[in-house]
Amino acid sequence: MNPTKLAARDETSAPAGTRARTMRAVVKAAAGMGAEIREVPVPACGAGELLLRVLRAGVCGTDLHIVNWDRWSQSRMHPPVTLGHEFVGEVVEAGAGVLDFAEGDRVACESHIICGTCLACRTGNGHVCERTRILGVDVNGGFAEFVAVPAVNAWRAPRNISLEAAAVMEPLGNAVHTAFAGPLSGRTIAVTGCGPIGLFAVGVARAAGATQVIATDVSAYRLDLARRMNADAVIDASRENVPDRVMALTQGRGVDGVLEMSGSPQAMRDGLLALRNGGRLSLLGLPKEPFELDWNRLVIFKGVTIHGIIGRRMYETWYQMDNLLQSGRLDVRPAITHVMERFHEAIALLQSGQAGKVVLVPWGQSTA
Amino acid sequence: MNPTKLAARDETSAPAGTRARTMRAVVKAAAGMGAEIREVPVPACGAGELLLRVLRAGVCGTDLHIVNWDRWSQSRMHPPVTLGHEFVGEVVEAGAGVLDFAEGDRVACESHIICGTCLACRTGNGHVCERTRILGVDVNGGFAEFVAVPAVNAWRAPRNISLEAAAVMEPLGNAVHTAFAGPLSGRTIAVTGCGPIGLFAVGVARAAGATQVIATDVSAYRLDLARRMNADAVIDASRENVPDRVMALTQGRGVDGVLEMSGSPQAMRDGLLALRNGGRLSLLGLPKEPFELDWNRLVIFKGVTIHGIIGRRMYETWYQMDNLLQSGRLDVRPAITHVMERFHEAIALLQSGQAGKVVLVPWGQSTA
Amino acid sequence: MNPTKLAARDETSAPAGTRARTMRAVVKAAAGMGAEIREVPVPACGAGELLLRVLRAGVCGTDLHIVNWDRWSQSRMHPPVTLGHEFVGEVVEAGAGVLDFAEGDRVACESHIICGTCLACRTGNGHVCERTRILGVDVNGGFAEFVAVPAVNAWRAPRNISLEAAAVMEPLGNAVHTAFAGPLSGRTIAVTGCGPIGLFAVGVARAAGATQVIATDVSAYRLDLARRMNADAVIDASRENVPDRVMALTQGRGVDGVLEMSGSPQAMRDGLLALRNGGRLSLLGLPKEPFELDWNRLVIFKGVTIHGIIGRRMYETWYQMDNLLQSGRLDVRPAITHVMERFHEAIALLQSGQAGKVVLVPWGQSTA
Amino acid sequence: MNPTKLAARDETSAPAGTRARTMRAVVKAAAGMGAEIREVPVPACGAGELLLRVLRAGVCGTDLHIVNWDRWSQSRMHPPVTLGHEFVGEVVEAGAGVLDFAEGDRVACESHIICGTCLACRTGNGHVCERTRILGVDVNGGFAEFVAVPAVNAWRAPRNISLEAAAVMEPLGNAVHTAFAGPLSGRTIAVTGCGPIGLFAVGVARAAGATQVIATDVSAYRLDLARRMNADAVIDASRENVPDRVMALTQGRGVDGVLEMSGSPQAMRDGLLALRNGGRLSLLGLPKEPFELDWNRLVIFKGVTIHGIIGRRMYETWYQMDNLLQSGRLDVRPAITHVMERFHEAIALLQSGQAGKVVLVPWGQSTA
Repeated sequence: MNPTKLAARDETSAPAGTRARTMRAVVKAAAGMGAEIREVPVPACGAGELLLRVLRAGVCGTDLHIVNWDRWSQSRMHPPVTLGHEFVGEVVEAGAGVLDFAEGDRVACESHIICGTCLACRTGNGHVCERTRILGVDVNGGFAEFVAVPAVNAWRAPRNISLEAAAVMEPLGNAVHTAFAGPLSGRTIAVTGCGPIGLFAVGVARAAGATQVIATDVSAYRLDLARRMNADAVIDASRENVPDRVMALTQGRGVDGVLEMSGSPQAMRDGLLALRNGGRLSLLGLPKEPFELDWNRLVIFKGVTIHGIIGRRMYETWYQMDNLLQSGRLDVRPAITHVMERFHEAIALLQSGQAGKVVLVPWGQSTA
Repeated sequence: MNPTKLAARDETSAPAGTRARTMRAVVKAAAGMGAEIREVPVPACGAGELLLRVLRAGVCGTDLHIVNWDRWSQSRMHPPVTLGHEFVGEVVEAGAGVLDFAEGDRVACESHIICGTCLACRTGNGHVCERTRILGVDVNGGFAEFVAVPAVNAWRAPRNISLEAAAVMEPLGNAVHTAFAGPLSGRTIAVTGCGPIGLFAVGVARAAGATQVIATDVSAYRLDLARRMNADAVIDASRENVPDRVMALTQGRGVDGVLEMSGSPQAMRDGLLALRNGGRLSLLGLPKEPFELDWNRLVIFKGVTIHGIIGRRMYETWYQMDNLLQSGRLDVRPAITHVMERFHEAIALLQSGQAGKVVLVPWGQSTA
Repeated sequence: MNPTKLAARDETSAPAGTRARTMRAVVKAAAGMGAEIREVPVPACGAGELLLRVLRAGVCGTDLHIVNWDRWSQSRMHPPVTLGHEFVGEVVEAGAGVLDFAEGDRVACESHIICGTCLACRTGNGHVCERTRILGVDVNGGFAEFVAVPAVNAWRAPRNISLEAAAVMEPLGNAVHTAFAGPLSGRTIAVTGCGPIGLFAVGVARAAGATQVIATDVSAYRLDLARRMNADAVIDASRENVPDRVMALTQGRGVDGVLEMSGSPQAMRDGLLALRNGGRLSLLGLPKEPFELDWNRLVIFKGVTIHGIIGRRMYETWYQMDNLLQSGRLDVRPAITHVMERFHEAIALLQSGQAGKVVLVPWGQSTA
Repeated sequence: MNPTKLAARDETSAPAGTRARTMRAVVKAAAGMGAEIREVPVPACGAGELLLRVLRAGVCGTDLHIVNWDRWSQSRMHPPVTLGHEFVGEVVEAGAGVLDFAEGDRVACESHIICGTCLACRTGNGHVCERTRILGVDVNGGFAEFVAVPAVNAWRAPRNISLEAAAVMEPLGNAVHTAFAGPLSGRTIAVTGCGPIGLFAVGVARAAGATQVIATDVSAYRLDLARRMNADAVIDASRENVPDRVMALTQGRGVDGVLEMSGSPQAMRDGLLALRNGGRLSLLGLPKEPFELDWNRLVIFKGVTIHGIIGRRMYETWYQMDNLLQSGRLDVRPAITHVMERFHEAIALLQSGQAGKVVLVPWGQSTA
């Protein structure tokens, strides 16, 4: 957004008088376990912002961490904050200076609000802006009836996809960013870890031209989902030797790339062993703690490249994702295993491990 | 192949005694129009070489030029030469020092024999080696019962593809090289010109993850083949405005990449107009003569990148092609419209324009 | 700039009451030849903007075209417009929402004001934004006592460089963008055309690690300046055969890259002949009209890459340039041949061809 | 070198009758500590090979490990082997089929003899060929009066450099490969570890266009050498906080790239902390054992790329190095601290830590 466009800003703008002044939201109200459904004010729509009526929202492992008030949440969050960083909404108001969106547009949102002026932002690396504020973590998010977002963070959802698919473009973008960090066309790819983003990555790699996509996990449930996302082969790492199986599947060559989605040290080591010399491992999964690596054997002697991946390229990743979805080459529906209304049930489901991606329907909206 | 290595070649080595000493071949016998079927000696298999029994061979526009003895042929060739630079064969003898191939292997061949020691060769640009000698042009080629090739030029054909598909890996490699010269995954691509390599490029771009592949040509026959190679849309440049149609098909964005396969100045200009700002045009089609371009409007103001493409990356292109074919993502069969025995009929067919790729079956081999 | 930061905008802000309300400026007042010095209002400083007191300004060939009211100017401009797109200034006011600059900061400016929301802008290609408005062409520029610019377009000038050097960071950025479009480290580079941007490119290529920089031009005056910018060799294209000389200077290898800065068809052909197979030619010089090329011989058979270059990468180019200047590795002073007060004299000087870069000192400022 | 090509080698060829049949060499004669000076046969010069009279040879940490018979040596080597993998020599005989070198040529040598036919070799990754054999480790090397090498491994030494500089092109190539693994032009670079290759890397980064080169080590002796190799700043990691100092030196930005040359876990962590978000760390130093990393904080959240580096790109690295040396931009002499005749004294010197690169002069050759 070019701020010079914002000159016309109307400070008095607010949701139209006929709209409700309050709404329901899932709020992290205070430090400690839990999250609650509260009645809160509908946010104002500032200059350069969009006010969205939320249509669907994805629940993420991070939400689980926040509810459980883990160490990361404790160090990062300042309650009260409305949760929710994955969602699709309909524009109900466009703030002053917004030219590219209009009432009625259906948009998904980049969750990282970046400063635009630091060195990272100015050199095409906004995804590692040091002043990033995240929707649903640092500022109010989308587990609510309405949410206000910077217009530059909005991306018009492709028309051919379902509301549920549009709701998960944010985590899908993580998968796209990871996969697109290295070559995919005509390459063999292993995805280690089949949580929702891993499952997305399987579909992304296939749609983006990988000629063999091998998925690994320790859960039969998840491997079954990986198969439904079109993995060419799946490996149960709890019972099989991953590097051996990958070698057998690739004529002894090893894969050209590994997308590490599990955060498991063993998965990373297996991935590096399964990688051909000169290949790349793109690392999105967050390990629980520091872990050690045999650098010589697994990285240096193999001439491997490792990418640390966070967020999404702004907004190249969104453009790539848009093309993948719009073309119909990528269908994320098999990875969306549950669509439901109640936040706390969704959290319980995530905790059970028997779910792919879980999508919430806001109060009073039909899931039909 | 480093031809300098061949100096030690043992000229006296020859096919085993039980094999025939002569064979049939299509020979450019002398300067001037034409080519003839001749009985010639079976080539010897030197150190570092393979002797192949030819199983299938593709006929190329270049062969037509040679038969017609055009200006390029006159300046380049030194008859007599056995024609044929696209073929698949079975190893009947491996020369001294060859470790990676054995009798009975089925191999396709890179047609460029490079020096291995010039700056281009030593810095990963063997495809533009200044001392390149081409099979079937500068040295005896594969329109024959047997052909001798440097072992480094051989590539084991994927087992899952037909003999005809294996026979055309050389021109297919041109398409792969052109397509892979820029990003394909999640990108929109136009292919201008649907001769055999253009048709291959349509299939390659799709299999390699392009999310929209638009093919243009002036021949309804060829556009029909493009559709069968899975083009998402085709444009008849003889009746439609190519840039306008591309814009309509891409929401006004233009395509991310153009693969220019026609050599037509108009196709190149249309391609550049249809390209989005910052896109790439990869140029394989050879124009008949120099032509002019509005550099400012079509190249500089648009921030476009143009790649001159020749041959195939050695041997990255072959590895990518192998993956595409082996995975079954790429099927080139719709582009192979004719399989036949007689060379002169094939040439006539090519001249008619009513053919995709034409593949020859050597004398006495069944096409079943 | 993140527009969400602009919420606090004060509509009543304007140059402080004690500041003059009018100023002198070089204005293209109406269609037709010429430009005049006028008294005009000091611009207001809007939200997200900076008001600068201009300290120095560079004169560009484009200014000459505008004064001469050439075809391009006629089609593009809508007088009255204050000219000047190269300048350095001191911040005298920071508009609402500007966090990164403060009064007294010395800043150079990107001249392209981009939309920030089109596909090009959102995918890291803001330099080819289709809605670009240019300071001094489409909106009022810096040949004036004051100029208002979007804060996102400002770049803090390195402290170690002169005002004159800071004034020409915009055209210097063209040279950096062109040079950095391909590899420089450990490469041999030819710069064809030694106008001011070509001269800058010579210095940039050297400072950025090119191991041999060869400059060509048809003017002895300019070649002398090229020598002073540290060209390793210069070639007078009016008397010498450029490709032959380049080959002799590079042990017959040809150069790895050509930076085409002249817009001359002959220079481009010479550059392509002088380029090694697999090299790159980056094309910034604007030819006067379309011209023809022997694509086969100069581009395709050589496997060459051609980059169309416009503007500067936003803002990667500025970061690279900042590092080059700040380190002292790059010194542009030899290319700045004249520092003067009178605009019309500067234009006359440019027209004479006996100048490198000409820098203006605003009325009443000392050049000491 | 494609070893399959050597099969035709004529075992009976040998240095011309007038040449000596035996020579002195430093031989690892048997498992266990030590190495001895022995009289051994002058090697034969096979097809595709060069026989060199060794003029100078560099001593490497690896030689120390071999003398000390460390775990790696025990697992890898099969004595007897003549040591020495860094050397320059004069061609005294060119084997059959060698066209590009002639008697009297002065050549440095790539020490990795690669298969040329594996997937890595065929896709431009010969430096990670899985069948690599190393001169002086797996086959007889250059600590001898004569050595036979594959002609493809030879690189004509630039004429303007000293014999000592030519002798160390192999380890210098490690530095070039590491430095050139990411952008250098206009970038800030930290080199962690100032052993000989780290010292070379300092000079390479400067010559290749880095605008700030910061060297770190724990030895005052080595930091002094780093200064003489033109480091812009040095940091004594035994007394100073490396990340803090780097931030102070880079206006709080951090460096764009880190070249890790020490193998020290602390240096790697410091390097990652000192790196800007989105930067790259290229890793050549071999850690003594596996070590742990805080992946989240140091790699993933920063969006960092890590390159495992081994050997030299064949032969792109050599071309880049040639340009750097030939241009005079790079002068490695300050890093060469000792030139001497006796191998065992050189080993002792290395063990003392009070040396940069040590170069050997063969028996009976003058060091003048």
